[in-house]
Amino acid sequence: MLNFDQRLEFQNKSNDILTVGELLIDMISADYDDDFDCDTFHKFFGGSPSNIAMNVKKLGIHSLVASAVGEDGLGRFLIKHLNNANMDTRCVQQVPYATSMVVVSKSKNTPIPIFYREADYHLEYTPQLEEALMNSKIVHFSCWPISRMPVRNTIEKVIETAKENNTLICFDPNYHPMIWQKGEDGIEYVKSVISKVDIVKPSEDDAERLFGKDTNENHIEKFLKLGAKLVIMTLGKDGAIVSNGVETIKLNTLATEVVDTTGAGDAFWSGFYTAVVKGYTIREALNFGFAVSAYKLKYTGAVVDLPKLEEIKEIYGI
Amino acid sequence: MLNFDQRLEFQNKSNDILTVGELLIDMISADYDDDFDCDTFHKFFGGSPSNIAMNVKKLGIHSLVASAVGEDGLGRFLIKHLNNANMDTRCVQQVPYATSMVVVSKSKNTPIPIFYREADYHLEYTPQLEEALMNSKIVHFSCWPISRMPVRNTIEKVIETAKENNTLICFDPNYHPMIWQKGEDGIEYVKSVISKVDIVKPSEDDAERLFGKDTNENHIEKFLKLGAKLVIMTLGKDGAIVSNGVETIKLNTLATEVVDTTGAGDAFWSGFYTAVVKGYTIREALNFGFAVSAYKLKYTGAVVDLPKLEEIKEIYGI
Repeated sequence: MLNFDQRLEFQNKSNDILTVGELLIDMISADYDDDFDCDTFHKFFGGSPSNIAMNVKKLGIHSLVASAVGEDGLGRFLIKHLNNANMDTRCVQQVPYATSMVVVSKSKNTPIPIFYREADYHLEYTPQLEEALMNSKIVHFSCWPISRMPVRNTIEKVIETAKENNTLICFDPNYHPMIWQKGEDGIEYVKSVISKVDIVKPSEDDAERLFGKDTNENHIEKFLKLGAKLVIMTLGKDGAIVSNGVETIKLNTLATEVVDTTGAGDAFWSGFYTAVVKGYTIREALNFGFAVSAYKLKYTGAVVDLPKLEEIKEIYGI
Repeated sequence: MLNFDQRLEFQNKSNDILTVGELLIDMISADYDDDFDCDTFHKFFGGSPSNIAMNVKKLGIHSLVASAVGEDGLGRFLIKHLNNANMDTRCVQQVPYATSMVVVSKSKNTPIPIFYREADYHLEYTPQLEEALMNSKIVHFSCWPISRMPVRNTIEKVIETAKENNTLICFDPNYHPMIWQKGEDGIEYVKSVISKVDIVKPSEDDAERLFGKDTNENHIEKFLKLGAKLVIMTLGKDGAIVSNGVETIKLNTLATEVVDTTGAGDAFWSGFYTAVVKGYTIREALNFGFAVSAYKLKYTGAVVDLPKLEEIKEIYGI
C-alpha cells in the first residue's frame, strides 16, 4: 500500500524519470472552423510524455525521453526542440517511418483529431532504452504505446524490467478507441496493463470509456481491484479524488486563473513526480501536482516556462 | 500498333475517362526553409488522377474519379472540392483510415516530402467501381495505387476488366521508392504492370529510376520491349520523344511563358485524353497535350481554369 504520508524510497539511480511513448507533430488549424475548412495550419511539438519530461527538468529533477520519430525533417524538428530544451535525446530513435502526426481542426464544438501514426509505434526495446530504464527511479507511459504492435512489446519488456529493478511504474490510462488498430477493442488490454502498474491518473472520461458510466467512487474501486496501488482520479475544476485502497481523499485544485487548459494534466504529473523524487510525501506531492497545474493554467501552451519546485512551493504555500 | 495518324476507336460508353488512385491532402509549408523549420503550412487538394479528371471535364469530356479517402474532415474537404468542380463522386470511397497526406517543406534545393499513406491504399474493387470501369473508354492510374496492398489487388482487377472491355489502359510510371512499402523493391512490379498497359508517359527521371542511367532512345526501347504500345517520354522544356515501336517522333513544347510547373504533366495527359476521345489522331492529341500543358504553365496551381479544347485549338493553332 502507498500510504499518503509516506515518502517513496528510491534506489540511488542516476536518472529520475524516464517517459516512454509518443513524440509527434500536432498540426492545428489557425482558425476555428466546423470541419477542416481552414486552409492554414500551424505545426507544434507534441506528445505528452515529452512534455512531462521537459516540465520535470524545469522543476529540477533529471529526465529522459524514449520515443521514435521518422528519419525525416519533422523528426529532426522534434529532436532539435528537445535539444533546445536541454533534453538528453540519446533514447530518441529515428526509424524508417514518417514522424507521427495529429491533425486537428480547432472547433467550438468537440474537435475531432485525425491520427497519422507511423514512427511512434515502432519504438524498439534497445540496449540503450534498457540501460536508461535500469538507471531510472520512475517510468511513465500512456495508452499510446500500448495501443499498437510492435511498440506494445517494448512496453511489456519495460514493465518487466521496471518490476525487476524496483522502478515505480506510472501509467496514464487515457484510453480512446481512435488510437487503437481498427477492429481491436483495447479496453481489455488497458485493464491488463493497469494490473501491472503502481500509479494511474485517470480522468472521469478515461474511467467512463474503460468501465462505462458509474460513480467516481465505483470507478476508483475498479482501478484498485485491477491492481493499481494508487489511483488519482482528476475531476477538472473539481480537483481530484485519490485512493490507495484503504484511504480515499479529496483534493481541491489550486487554480485561480485559467488561460489555457492544454497540458494541465501533464503539469500535474510533473509536479507530483518532482515532489516524490525530492522526498515529499504522497499527500504533499499531490498538492505539488495541483500547484504546478495551477501555474501552467495561467499561461498559453502545453509546456510553459515553469520555475523550480522550491519556487512553486513558496508561491502556493505548500 | 498505335499508328500516329490513327484515330482511336472507342466503343459507345457513357463515360470517357476513369482515373483510379490517390486523392489526398498536400500540406505545404508557407515559406521556403531548409528542413521543416517553418511552422505554418497550407493544405491543398491533391492527387494527380483527380487533377486529370477535373482538367478533362473542363476541356469538355466526361470523367469519373475512383479513390479512397478517410471518414474524416479532410476526406469530406476533398469530396466537397470535387463536388464544387461539378465532379461525380460516386466512386470516391470513404474508408475507416485517415485521409492520406503528403507534407512538404518548400525548399530551394530538392524538397523531400513526407508521405502519410492511409486511406488511399484501401480502395476496394466494388461493384460500383466495376460498373464505372465498364462504362469508360479510358482508364488511367499512376504508381501510387500499385505500390501497396490491398489497392494493388484493385488495380489488378481493373486491368483485367479493362482488357476484357477494350478500355484503353494508360499508366503513369512515376516510380519512386519512397511510396513503396519498406523493404519492397517496386521496380519489378512496375515493369510487370507496364507489360499489361497500352500507353505510358514516363519522364526521364522515371525512366532512370526504373532502368538506370541510359539514353532516352534506349529507355524508350525498354518500355516498348516490356509491352507498352505507345511510349511518351517527356523531357521538360525539351518537349517529348514518342514511339509506337515502329516510328519515333520528336515533339516540341508549345510553352512560351512558365509561371508554375506544378501540374504540367497532368495537363499534358488531360489534353491528350480529351483530344483522342474527341476523335483527333494520336499525333494531333500529342500536340493538344503540349497545348494544354503550355496553357496551364502560364498560371499558378496544379489545376487551373482551362477553357474547352476547341478554344485551346484556336489559341495554339492546332
